[in-house]
Amino acid sequence: MLLQKIEAKKGNITESVRKISEKENVPAEKISESVAKGRTVILTHKNICWTGIGDCLHIKVNANLGTSPNVVDVDGELSKLDKACQLKTDTVMDLSTGGNLDIIREKIVQASPVPVGSVPIYQADIETVEEKGSFSHLTAEKIFRTIEKHAESGISFVTVHCGITLENLEMLKKSPRKTGVVSRGGSFIFSWMALTGKENPLYENFDRLIEIAKKYDLVLSLGDGLRPGCISDATDNLQISEVLKLGKLAGYANEEGVQVIIEGPGHVPINQIFTNVQIVKNICASAPLYLLGPLVTDIAPGYDHITSAIGAAVAGWAGADFICYVTPGEHLTLPTIDDVADGVVAAKIAAHAGDIARDMPGARKQDDLISEARFKRDWKQQEIFSINPEKFKKVRESQGIFSDDVCNMCGKYCAMKIISDMLKTPVTHF
Amino acid sequence: MLLQKIEAKKGNITESVRKISEKENVPAEKISESVAKGRTVILTHKNICWTGIGDCLHIKVNANLGTSPNVVDVDGELSKLDKACQLKTDTVMDLSTGGNLDIIREKIVQASPVPVGSVPIYQADIETVEEKGSFSHLTAEKIFRTIEKHAESGISFVTVHCGITLENLEMLKKSPRKTGVVSRGGSFIFSWMALTGKENPLYENFDRLIEIAKKYDLVLSLGDGLRPGCISDATDNLQISEVLKLGKLAGYANEEGVQVIIEGPGHVPINQIFTNVQIVKNICASAPLYLLGPLVTDIAPGYDHITSAIGAAVAGWAGADFICYVTPGEHLTLPTIDDVADGVVAAKIAAHAGDIARDMPGARKQDDLISEARFKRDWKQQEIFSINPEKFKKVRESQGIFSDDVCNMCGKYCAMKIISDMLKTPVTHF
Repeated sequence: MLLQKIEAKKGNITESVRKISEKENVPAEKISESVAKGRTVILTHKNICWTGIGDCLHIKVNANLGTSPNVVDVDGELSKLDKACQLKTDTVMDLSTGGNLDIIREKIVQASPVPVGSVPIYQADIETVEEKGSFSHLTAEKIFRTIEKHAESGISFVTVHCGITLENLEMLKKSPRKTGVVSRGGSFIFSWMALTGKENPLYENFDRLIEIAKKYDLVLSLGDGLRPGCISDATDNLQISEVLKLGKLAGYANEEGVQVIIEGPGHVPINQIFTNVQIVKNICASAPLYLLGPLVTDIAPGYDHITSAIGAAVAGWAGADFICYVTPGEHLTLPTIDDVADGVVAAKIAAHAGDIARDMPGARKQDDLISEARFKRDWKQQEIFSINPEKFKKVRESQGIFSDDVCNMCGKYCAMKIISDMLKTPVTHF
Repeated sequence: MLLQKIEAKKGNITESVRKISEKENVPAEKISESVAKGRTVILTHKNICWTGIGDCLHIKVNANLGTSPNVVDVDGELSKLDKACQLKTDTVMDLSTGGNLDIIREKIVQASPVPVGSVPIYQADIETVEEKGSFSHLTAEKIFRTIEKHAESGISFVTVHCGITLENLEMLKKSPRKTGVVSRGGSFIFSWMALTGKENPLYENFDRLIEIAKKYDLVLSLGDGLRPGCISDATDNLQISEVLKLGKLAGYANEEGVQVIIEGPGHVPINQIFTNVQIVKNICASAPLYLLGPLVTDIAPGYDHITSAIGAAVAGWAGADFICYVTPGEHLTLPTIDDVADGVVAAKIAAHAGDIARDMPGARKQDDLISEARFKRDWKQQEIFSINPEKFKKVRESQGIFSDDVCNMCGKYCAMKIISDMLKTPVTHF
């Protein structure tokens, strides 16, 4: 097994680094150096697709898929996968918690053209509850076996909640947090620690995780079990104490040649986002930062693709590398396929706004092309260069089309038409 | 006629200041001082509603309404007004350019519970073209008469493109801008200046505008005819040269006791938004800043309520006071009623995120209430405290409801349920 970080540390530029270099128009040497330092990771998908995530590359987007205990529609999830990929998500995660989890995961891995991530603790926990009636019977053995099974079945990255410990459980009991723990995996582990009085195996036996990661070049996404679930809980002692532990583990993984990502909040007021990104980057050896949002307000369920796009754009500007989409269904329901589409596009907008702010090479090219087409009122070209041509067409036609030249908001009083005519025609001819 | 700024300068706290103080929970003295300094304006609507906009108050939202040359459906526009007000827009503007403009404006003013703004140059120009065949026959007299007619008919604030001049026309001809001028009113005036060789009457005869404003306590919203229409044109010499002129005029209006707002861009990369807000605030005597977006990328027609919400939230954090909504129809069509709803909510989210960042008194209250209800899985309370309860219900029900306790994303594996059960129950009872 060729390990990306080990090769990069040796100064070997791998085939996958070359492919990413071509795709993103960033020098291969630069990417390889960043991988060696742990500032960039490379996700490998079935030897057909390599996706780089890190400080010298474009910001990437993930779309969550998967069944719930109440809604198990595997074909529906595969349709969401197609839609998310059509709208250019960079990765997907299978977060299924209902139905036959092995079969669903395998179907998604097989159908996906992009790297697939998962959260193995879900399956370990759910199977334990189903087989033995309670979380409390979960064993370290079961957790690590499940993680290895996921890696074997083609999963490229796994969320592992390594940074929460018994110490955090005591802190949590005394905490004034309004929403406690909103991480599903985090709640499983806290509950297990409370039931058994034992330390989190993912923290205590991190070495075992390192061994699995080395065997499969599995990227470890160090989960944020204590991410704030409302703006009132943001940037608190619980959140930061987890970041400190993740930093220690990230440093160790770096030494061992294992690729890691750090996961981040959550719900954060807009003026605390830079602080959050900088703390994680500083403490966690500048490992790639994977954010869920952050949502900049709690009041907008039904619109959390927007509240999270605001936060994600600012976070991208501040240095976040990887954005998990949030759909309009967040906090309310498993997303519909339309929710998935809206979520992917909102996250892509945020990522793109971040790339522009960070002055990524070529980031403005598509903006320039569509703007030039806009001034010429070339609607076909605008459609082609728009983030979702299907939506462009649908909205443009929503109230009928009255002209091939202008849109029906301003009609003949189109400012760009008036000005381009004026600039074209000598004044005396008016 | 009682003039808000004159009274404030005298140290008199008006009835409208008291009403705003009660509504926003900000001391009346503080508001009045801010009005006296020109940092806050008070819009008066038919002696039934007063809306304050400025640095000591909550960020406000405007929704644009109005017909186009191609789509004239007055009842449709009145339905949009109702929808926008139901979703708590703070003001509306009638930007009609099709049908009988006087009748439409009067119907909107009559039906509206919130202050109504307009752009009188549209009517002056359109009527001139209709009557005389060309922009070139427009006269200063016609412009000022139309402005006065709007004030008389109950308009609370008018956009007046006072800062563009013949000098700008020459600059524009040599400019590398990709989208030239995207302000409709701006394009009318530039075109008129090019045709006639004359100076912009709104600049040259600003005194006349001051007199009308005094007669009706009409708030002058100094329009940005040179706002960038794409990120490539942002923060350029044309834009800044207009800001310099607006600053001069704002200073003069301040001396004369006339209330002014400054309008701002447009399309601006996220990392240039603070710069833009600070330049306008510094140069224009900290007058309230009214922004259209800014949109942080050009590539997302169909989703520009999102690109603008990102920009507006950052701008609000930076100090913007008044946010004009952008709908998903922007750049493509006159908005549908659903577009209006999406536009208002996106702008309200941005305004609220800005209020939180600026630590406005009480800004976090609704967030705290919904988050507490969320932890308790009290769905009725969450619905009540959500930004759009109708949408909340629709999304929650979109895939069926399987439980009164949890949502169907995580079902029985709800993190908050697991954690609140754990925190409630002594560990030994598990």
